[in-house]
Amino acid sequence: MYPKSLENLIQSFQRLPGVGKKTAERYAYFLVNKFDKSDIERFIQNLELCKNTIKRCSVCGFLTEDDVCEYCKDTTRDKSIIVVVEEPKDVEAIERIEKYHGLYHVLGGAISPLNGVGPDELNMKSLFERAKEPSLKEVIIATSANVEGEATAIFISRALQKENIKVSRIAYGMPVGSKIEYSDESTILRAIEGRKEIK
Amino acid sequence: MYPKSLENLIQSFQRLPGVGKKTAERYAYFLVNKFDKSDIERFIQNLELCKNTIKRCSVCGFLTEDDVCEYCKDTTRDKSIIVVVEEPKDVEAIERIEKYHGLYHVLGGAISPLNGVGPDELNMKSLFERAKEPSLKEVIIATSANVEGEATAIFISRALQKENIKVSRIAYGMPVGSKIEYSDESTILRAIEGRKEIK
Repeated sequence: MYPKSLENLIQSFQRLPGVGKKTAERYAYFLVNKFDKSDIERFIQNLELCKNTIKRCSVCGFLTEDDVCEYCKDTTRDKSIIVVVEEPKDVEAIERIEKYHGLYHVLGGAISPLNGVGPDELNMKSLFERAKEPSLKEVIIATSANVEGEATAIFISRALQKENIKVSRIAYGMPVGSKIEYSDESTILRAIEGRKEIK
Repeated sequence: MYPKSLENLIQSFQRLPGVGKKTAERYAYFLVNKFDKSDIERFIQNLELCKNTIKRCSVCGFLTEDDVCEYCKDTTRDKSIIVVVEEPKDVEAIERIEKYHGLYHVLGGAISPLNGVGPDELNMKSLFERAKEPSLKEVIIATSANVEGEATAIFISRALQKENIKVSRIAYGMPVGSKIEYSDESTILRAIEGRKEIK
């Protein structure tokens, strides 16, 4: 069998998402075989740094090393609009389109009664605080296109009804480049329901 | 963009085999989000331990925390037979069949002139030393079933010709449970060449 320390490292790798025994073995084995000591040292330092410095932005909930994240700090961004997402990764996905210059709000998940996640488990309260800002005009809810994401969108839109702001939901429909014959029924239904007049 | 420390951790993960940008992001992100500080601490400790304690067995080249590995230390194992493999992972694969109780020799790769790997780059010399042991009766070469593995097998068998031991090569043929129609030509050819009489 492998030495104990290697077995332990395999177990650590197995805790990562989608990593089973075989893949974890492959990673750990590669690491002890092909990495220089200095490479492992750098890996350790990077883990240390992440453990010690990364926290949630106190305004929007995105990841940051400071109290406030890059996006909230950036004075050039449009403060009249907030996109609400589930996870920090969603922020990066929206940034990649390079067309959105407003602010973000990261919930840290979606409402899911089955998993015991209610509004109180999410970064929701600070969103309602932010919604009171006079500069804010619109909240775009960009939660996932599934039951939990939809429930979260409905909850937020109801909670913000009393504020004098527009609350919108990103569109459901056919992904760009896709063929109708390969789309599932719910997507086609939503695409038809969400049709727009051609002018 | 993500905080610098998270970007660095993503880069560390990207150095692992088969891990691209997306997967590395997923791992790093999961780690800062879902791991407790104590989990990350344990991960760091496991990396530290591997970096500091794991070395090659001075006899066979397998991974060990001591000078000599578990298999070489084990006095109950059959000292008359050595299986020669390319990598420590191969040892574990052979152990899993639970039918082999001899010793191992790990080369650390295969002869590959294209990649600048000759016999001197491999753990070869100590194999030839071990072949002189009077207790040794047979060396089974279990290198990969490809050009490099085959070249390595031929090199070793020639080098051991002068010793009074049997040198064998594991069989090429159809994998158990496979269908002929899905097998490649070389495998079928080798399976036919390696046919055995039914008695």
